[in-house]
Amino acid sequence: MDKIPILRFGHFLLVTIQVDLYDRLALNLESDLIQMVSKTQARGVLIDISALSIVDSFMGRIIGNIAGMSKIMDAQTVVVGMQPAVAITLIELGLELKGVYTALNVEKGMSLLQSKISLPDEDLDNIE
Amino acid sequence: MDKIPILRFGHFLLVTIQVDLYDRLALNLESDLIQMVSKTQARGVLIDISALSIVDSFMGRIIGNIAGMSKIMDAQTVVVGMQPAVAITLIELGLELKGVYTALNVEKGMSLLQSKISLPDEDLDNIE
Repeated sequence: MDKIPILRFGHFLLVTIQVDLYDRLALNLESDLIQMVSKTQARGVLIDISALSIVDSFMGRIIGNIAGMSKIMDAQTVVVGMQPAVAITLIELGLELKGVYTALNVEKGMSLLQSKISLPDEDLDNIE
Repeated sequence: MDKIPILRFGHFLLVTIQVDLYDRLALNLESDLIQMVSKTQARGVLIDISALSIVDSFMGRIIGNIAGMSKIMDAQTVVVGMQPAVAITLIELGLELKGVYTALNVEKGMSLLQSKISLPDEDLDNIE
């Protein structure tokens, strides 16, 4: 697999990371995601990491990069589904995921994004 | 990885398959999904296979199983994001994915599910 699928939900994009990111995969994800943000004019990016039982410093940096790039493109990033052990590891590694919002699950993440970008609720259904 | 994450969106569950399913992973997915359908009273299951460039007969059978099980639990299954090459292979293999709805992408799949289970649009936002 050399691509992680990016799913579109109205104004938001969803990425589910299920495998360890190696260099090329991470770079592909970054560029695909930014292109999707631009193409779909997405206002938010949800990154689901519920499948990951470990997040190393590389992965942490990639998530930070994505958040930074998205922000420049006027989209907010929310990391959802983080396992408790991952949160512990991140803090122990000194990675605070600055500039990245977090939420317990996708639904809470979407609510958070909606409040951040102040869209009315029904805009979630604006499916083209 | 021994689990594929299942994400909840209101009345629907979303599964993104990014890796080849081997026996245990497939069995885990089946049982996790059915338990989630029961626990969340989901009315629909979306299976995104946009990351797969090949679907073999085993994968086809698993998707069929999931659709069958979900149906008994009163949930419809929609496979979304199928690559053209996969559609060609499936038909050449004689796998017609009977009882499984398909849609081009997640948004179209959600619309399809909504029409199938005749929920009003705004119910997508019923986030608990």
